[in-house]
Amino acid sequence: MTLDTNWYTEEWSGQGTAISLKFKSKLHDEQSPYQRIEIYETETFGRLMTLDGLVMVTDRDNFVYHEMMSHPALFAHPAPQRVLVIGGGDCGTLREVLKHDGVTLAEQVELDERVTRVAEKFFPDLCASNNDPRARLRFDDGIAWVAKATPESYDVIIIDSTDPVGPAAGLFSEAFYRNCFKALGPQGILVGQSESPLFHAELIRSVQKSMRDSGFKDVATLHFPQCTYPSGWWSATMASKQGGLVNFRRPASNKMFTTRYYNSDIHQGALALPQFLRK
Amino acid sequence: MTLDTNWYTEEWSGQGTAISLKFKSKLHDEQSPYQRIEIYETETFGRLMTLDGLVMVTDRDNFVYHEMMSHPALFAHPAPQRVLVIGGGDCGTLREVLKHDGVTLAEQVELDERVTRVAEKFFPDLCASNNDPRARLRFDDGIAWVAKATPESYDVIIIDSTDPVGPAAGLFSEAFYRNCFKALGPQGILVGQSESPLFHAELIRSVQKSMRDSGFKDVATLHFPQCTYPSGWWSATMASKQGGLVNFRRPASNKMFTTRYYNSDIHQGALALPQFLRK
Repeated sequence: MTLDTNWYTEEWSGQGTAISLKFKSKLHDEQSPYQRIEIYETETFGRLMTLDGLVMVTDRDNFVYHEMMSHPALFAHPAPQRVLVIGGGDCGTLREVLKHDGVTLAEQVELDERVTRVAEKFFPDLCASNNDPRARLRFDDGIAWVAKATPESYDVIIIDSTDPVGPAAGLFSEAFYRNCFKALGPQGILVGQSESPLFHAELIRSVQKSMRDSGFKDVATLHFPQCTYPSGWWSATMASKQGGLVNFRRPASNKMFTTRYYNSDIHQGALALPQFLRK
Repeated sequence: MTLDTNWYTEEWSGQGTAISLKFKSKLHDEQSPYQRIEIYETETFGRLMTLDGLVMVTDRDNFVYHEMMSHPALFAHPAPQRVLVIGGGDCGTLREVLKHDGVTLAEQVELDERVTRVAEKFFPDLCASNNDPRARLRFDDGIAWVAKATPESYDVIIIDSTDPVGPAAGLFSEAFYRNCFKALGPQGILVGQSESPLFHAELIRSVQKSMRDSGFKDVATLHFPQCTYPSGWWSATMASKQGGLVNFRRPASNKMFTTRYYNSDIHQGALALPQFLRK
């Protein structure tokens, strides 16, 4: 079959595969100083934001990604107070971070202010915590920000970036991870999105190695479904300065905030590596 | 963007989404007595088989599905010897079942012999165990087969079916599960593919309830990535006559056969239900 014109299609780069979402209307289209930002009203996935033609977020399935980018790292730290989010312009990760009562500062450093302004307009749910007094929205270069950060000034750093090409490439480098290591306290946790286990296993291994080589004692990759990202399967790779990523905190279910995907069993399950990623 | 003509596209029914695979050539196209069977040589997913225009199997990503349809159920049984596969015409599940040394009979009941004959030609890897002396290929109606089966004659029944429409709809019914219950020995395990957690949560709940109502003591849903199936995220629901699905056998890694996705930690992780599927 051939899709008619009311479909947004993203070809998964180099993978001979593509995903399409049927839309009712296009709500927004702008060229920011950094990228083209488009918003569609889809038929069954709510709103869709694309950056330079790549799916960033949809209303329907973003919960898995945002919860898995935030809660495993925060529960891997014994008492996270100061959290830095690099990228994350749609603010969905920031919202999840702020669900943790112990957090006193959630600082987000996004390069492109327009992404956040557009998200505030079209994804109000994701931006619901932007005015939390603990939130600080910075629009700046995350690589430079971490390089200049006061040593040991954060408990958790979350790299909620786009793919490792263009401006985001530096967010996958050992040099950057070394600066994260310095900026983290002695029990600090780093986590970064690390693409698809099916499509990018080599990248995952490279991120793991670079994090280890940067001085982190323990490194672990989490995997989870993400329907609208390439292959429908995604990962995040965590690193800990003191080790022990398997010993994360498990709040009693009646002390947990509301989530739709995350719980402690899901956290542990996401750490189980498929056989082909072991060794 | 619009895809050119060398793309196979499947619209995910009712979900306003579609997946496309770029192909180099179409290798086969026939109308069997039951359905249209097509084979494509894709650019990056190896060969692709579709039935009535829906993706059934690709070389690249079928390992996850076939391993998760077989090994969790077989390791949930203390000593499975006699295994029945309903459907499963591409023979990938059968091949996984036969990796278990203790299995003495792996009987497959597929409605459409042409699916298996076409798979033998175009997916020789999946059919590599079809001539194993323990394998029995039957081409018959699985629903009638189970209804007539000798009571307690199987240890594990695997329902490797197409979607719950048309001829496969009966494979999701309580009447069918009751017959499976009767055909299984006292420690018997039933497992059936149960669609996408993101798209078909109601179906999963209905399968769980029907299995429980059929007399099974314990029911559990496994979830796993499956790139080319709707939403990229799939599930299988297991039921046990004597209960205790969490207490599955964990072979020492040096006693395990070769897998690419499955291992004991993956098995346990797949049992962790996302928060929205709990309760």
